[in-house]
Amino acid sequence: MRWAKIEWQGAVSYGIVEGDRIALVEGGLFDVGQRTGRTAPLNEVKFHVPLIPRTFYAAGMNYVDHVIEQAKIAGREPNIPAKPDIGYRANNALIAHNEAIVKPKDSTEKFQYEGELVAIIGKQVKHVSEADALDSVFGYTIGNDVSERTWQNSDRTLWRAKNTDTFKPMGPWIETDVDLEPMRTTVRLNGREVISFDTNNMLFGVARYISAMSQYLTLYPGDVIWMGTEGRAENMVPGDVCEIEIDGIGSLSNPIVAED
Amino acid sequence: MRWAKIEWQGAVSYGIVEGDRIALVEGGLFDVGQRTGRTAPLNEVKFHVPLIPRTFYAAGMNYVDHVIEQAKIAGREPNIPAKPDIGYRANNALIAHNEAIVKPKDSTEKFQYEGELVAIIGKQVKHVSEADALDSVFGYTIGNDVSERTWQNSDRTLWRAKNTDTFKPMGPWIETDVDLEPMRTTVRLNGREVISFDTNNMLFGVARYISAMSQYLTLYPGDVIWMGTEGRAENMVPGDVCEIEIDGIGSLSNPIVAED
Repeated sequence: MRWAKIEWQGAVSYGIVEGDRIALVEGGLFDVGQRTGRTAPLNEVKFHVPLIPRTFYAAGMNYVDHVIEQAKIAGREPNIPAKPDIGYRANNALIAHNEAIVKPKDSTEKFQYEGELVAIIGKQVKHVSEADALDSVFGYTIGNDVSERTWQNSDRTLWRAKNTDTFKPMGPWIETDVDLEPMRTTVRLNGREVISFDTNNMLFGVARYISAMSQYLTLYPGDVIWMGTEGRAENMVPGDVCEIEIDGIGSLSNPIVAED
Repeated sequence: MRWAKIEWQGAVSYGIVEGDRIALVEGGLFDVGQRTGRTAPLNEVKFHVPLIPRTFYAAGMNYVDHVIEQAKIAGREPNIPAKPDIGYRANNALIAHNEAIVKPKDSTEKFQYEGELVAIIGKQVKHVSEADALDSVFGYTIGNDVSERTWQNSDRTLWRAKNTDTFKPMGPWIETDVDLEPMRTTVRLNGREVISFDTNNMLFGVARYISAMSQYLTLYPGDVIWMGTEGRAENMVPGDVCEIEIDGIGSLSNPIVAED
């Protein structure tokens, strides 16, 4: 089932995506009510971020080629993570499907996309085994971990390199029925494919991360975990459109604009 | 004015601390209603975390001696930050005044307190000047940035070193009328003073941080910024009580217990 948060005819609500229409429902994602009986055409609604994270987790370095390529950019030896150490992103940076990624005035040309699988936690867990970990996942969506590489290498933290306003497109919706194994993630810039990779070919998969995290922290419904990206990205410039497609979920598309 | 979130006679509400009593009010911190007319004795209420952060920011290395001492522990040269690069903590780890800090079973003996000033944002700001930045602060509270130093040095991120459940005591309340300049922060372990420092003797003060952050990100009401700590901490063991006092705000006290 596909859950979207949308605005239509002046009202914001959750809905269930069915073909090219969305059936509106009462209530929120975790306290969903009845269908209202109204449906909206998908191509007429404004998408919202499907869920504002309770805590916004991000795996960071979680695909081998990406670790190697980022080390090259930074001019150091690659350091393949030996265990799943989770990181954080910030809610201020979230934007929805079709909203504009704003390239800051002082950004260098190294302004890049990162296509990522996003797991949405639906159940409170602590000390969960890897075998049971996926039971805590409500569904999956798509994230673009937009990154300014110069700041990523110069700053002490990732605050502005990855959490400047509009740097975290997430959506378009949450898909609850997903088979991770055959998935591919494909990123397109202005319609041209720039990378395609096996989504689940991670250093540490979703279940491994959730189980490891839950040995020390409680995961709550509404927490989200961005699972990292593969390869080396190209630069984006204002006027570009960046699209991230993950099989079985959908496609997240955002234009790039220059800061006023 | 001192705003506390408390539980008394089975109900949770905000209240205004006045002497040894608290006057209960209707509504939340940013949509406060009328006084209910009821007051509770301070020594009979259960404190809650005064505010669940919208985004939980933390300055990290923000006092000179602390940067030097942490570098010694890690066995490297100190690297004094040249600019305010903000970091993040996570809400799962928050506990209130008087609640127990749980030392994990596999924690090493390097399990330590960090007494910190916490600024609570009350106004949405972007591109704010340093001169105007403090107008966005609703008030201040106290934080204990509990840290497991072995994990802090071994892990790729601070996720478990600083964000394990119960590692972030915050409270007891939010003080809106504060003069930063003469403040001192004093940490006591079982009543014995272990450090006392000028709270505002930061590498980058509250106004500088807020202004710098707001050049890239929007700050929202309910965001919190932990401002870092000074010096080298001692270890805490189960049975200890750690108390952090900041002049003009109050005192945050938490017992340490062992994980079951």
